[in-house]
Amino acid sequence: MLDPQSVGLVSAQCAEFDEPFTLQSGAVLPRYRLMYETYGQLNAARSNAILICHALSGNHHVAGRYTPDDKYPGWWDSMVGPGKPIDTNRFFVVGVNNLGGCHGSTGPSSVNPDSGKPWGSRFPVVVVNDWVQTQARLADRLGIERWAAVIGGSLGGMQALRWTVTYPQRIRHCLTIASAPKLTAQNIAFNDVARNAILADPDFHGGDYYQHGVLPRRGLKLARMLGHITYLSDAGMGGKFGRQHKSGEYQFGYDTEFEIESYLRYQGDRFADVFDANTYLLMTKALDYFDPARHFGGSLPAALAATDARFLVVAFDSDWRFSPDRSKETVKALLDAKKSVSYAEISSVHGHDAFLMTDEPYMRLMDAYLKRVADEVGT
Amino acid sequence: MLDPQSVGLVSAQCAEFDEPFTLQSGAVLPRYRLMYETYGQLNAARSNAILICHALSGNHHVAGRYTPDDKYPGWWDSMVGPGKPIDTNRFFVVGVNNLGGCHGSTGPSSVNPDSGKPWGSRFPVVVVNDWVQTQARLADRLGIERWAAVIGGSLGGMQALRWTVTYPQRIRHCLTIASAPKLTAQNIAFNDVARNAILADPDFHGGDYYQHGVLPRRGLKLARMLGHITYLSDAGMGGKFGRQHKSGEYQFGYDTEFEIESYLRYQGDRFADVFDANTYLLMTKALDYFDPARHFGGSLPAALAATDARFLVVAFDSDWRFSPDRSKETVKALLDAKKSVSYAEISSVHGHDAFLMTDEPYMRLMDAYLKRVADEVGT
Repeated sequence: MLDPQSVGLVSAQCAEFDEPFTLQSGAVLPRYRLMYETYGQLNAARSNAILICHALSGNHHVAGRYTPDDKYPGWWDSMVGPGKPIDTNRFFVVGVNNLGGCHGSTGPSSVNPDSGKPWGSRFPVVVVNDWVQTQARLADRLGIERWAAVIGGSLGGMQALRWTVTYPQRIRHCLTIASAPKLTAQNIAFNDVARNAILADPDFHGGDYYQHGVLPRRGLKLARMLGHITYLSDAGMGGKFGRQHKSGEYQFGYDTEFEIESYLRYQGDRFADVFDANTYLLMTKALDYFDPARHFGGSLPAALAATDARFLVVAFDSDWRFSPDRSKETVKALLDAKKSVSYAEISSVHGHDAFLMTDEPYMRLMDAYLKRVADEVGT
Repeated sequence: MLDPQSVGLVSAQCAEFDEPFTLQSGAVLPRYRLMYETYGQLNAARSNAILICHALSGNHHVAGRYTPDDKYPGWWDSMVGPGKPIDTNRFFVVGVNNLGGCHGSTGPSSVNPDSGKPWGSRFPVVVVNDWVQTQARLADRLGIERWAAVIGGSLGGMQALRWTVTYPQRIRHCLTIASAPKLTAQNIAFNDVARNAILADPDFHGGDYYQHGVLPRRGLKLARMLGHITYLSDAGMGGKFGRQHKSGEYQFGYDTEFEIESYLRYQGDRFADVFDANTYLLMTKALDYFDPARHFGGSLPAALAATDARFLVVAFDSDWRFSPDRSKETVKALLDAKKSVSYAEISSVHGHDAFLMTDEPYMRLMDAYLKRVADEVGT
């Protein structure tokens, strides 16, 4: 609790937006709320704000703890805090739960004020650009005209990249980590199996399970187990679990037997207890749809042409969900668009999950890059 | 129909075994039947017999057609036939449906003669070595003392390898293709998600769905979709489907939209129509359990020490389910055991499925190797 490198006790805030918001799908939300947290102080020049964009299962609780005996801190506590790479002594850091989420921001599990019932199947499908636009409204509310940096890993990195397309002048640095400029067929295929697991669960009730007093836990558990495999590297999983056995002897049945089974099922169950299946569907669809080049004749350099931002692109060698080759596509497009870009491929055993880990070269890189950003914005 | 390289019209045969068979689990089958097919003629010396072992979803119908208007030939018709690499002008080829299968051999969907009902949940878990032993009984029945070769891809390759451990003198050549000496944690994890999809299907009824007049189609479909992703390479899938869209426009819903989704769901549905979920469970467990070194102090060279067989080990560069590194483990063990082994890593875009495909270097290699085998056994 007395960790000098922790932001300490934090609390979430809620921003209500009463103006209607038209999504890319054409659907209109008459009003919505976004949960967010902030750490550090906005300086007088309002030049030191950093936006952290979350990935599939993340939220606005990026760092710190809610109570002194909170078991877990925010999901990127290793990266955000006093003296940490995203240094809250210098930066004003904003974490936000995206629209469609299940941690307080308006989403499928929220009550639709017009009907008095949860949105469920009637909540519109949201795309990355919708998130960026709602994040911009939050920035307006907080008085932030231009972010010192927008940072995210995986789906969060897609948001950071999209910021440079939608608001090319409102972002000074874009840090996109373990991400990709669009999904491959294999990526989409994994997402589709995960969605099918949820859609096929008899407790899904077409997305309106809230009214039936049940949750599609089995489907969501399967989706998470599958996702989890793709977040780890083969070698990392092998090093941690190998073919280790709970009992040492084969059981000749279908109960949990190998350690890896036990781990995956436990993770799946835990996730299904706390996450909303409709949000999972929506997040995977946002991943599938992400393709900023799409409205620029398929040209990513054209999509990126207008921005002033400078870029840091980070990939991890054991990440096979979003391999370094995918990051290099982004780098190549940035070079073609004559943008300033730094690229690093970090050696790590942690696969896609490495963006959440603390491999020393990764932490050092982030620290060095962000120190330069802090100096540049005069904080 | 007049394809001179086809074995032509074939029919399955059935071997009944009335002597009890004790499985590795300790369970005893009082009697069982194996479906099999043969192509070509056994020579007078009985030296020209080749056993083809099938993988997860295969069966005894390896080549030819059952009727002139049969839509599909056997699953390895590209490899087996007159003038093909496994040349039925020279070899006597045997395909067998493994115990626990769902194509006529005794398995969970067969009627247990003692109860008059399908075995269902009471069918014992079977391991690769059980298959090898029942295949040996079939060899005895056919008068085959020693196979010229035992050949298989994937799980079939494991059976071929196991033959050299259990019956070290009854196999002249072992051809193990796109296989591995044991599964990694990641392999087991994928299988466990597939199993969980089936086990969690409310229509599974603990494995006794036959009596309930339902099938766990949803679970089996998910299992197959997931498996299918791992059989293809990222690049192969990308080349075939990319991000192609059925309509060209985003639908903002969860129906089939990208071509890859359409393909996977179709394949999953088709599979769920014809395959038995209990057999799928059993096959994946046989994969997980396979570890011939296990009873030799963890030493694969020790397990392989007794055999006279010579080996061909084949891997495909884009196979990430059983990567070339896994085949090299087998090769290394064979070299350590001072066995004769040839190894080839074939360049192919087809991923794990390449063992069923007809990439020219692969076909040429198989052809050359097996011509030598034919010459050697004097056929």
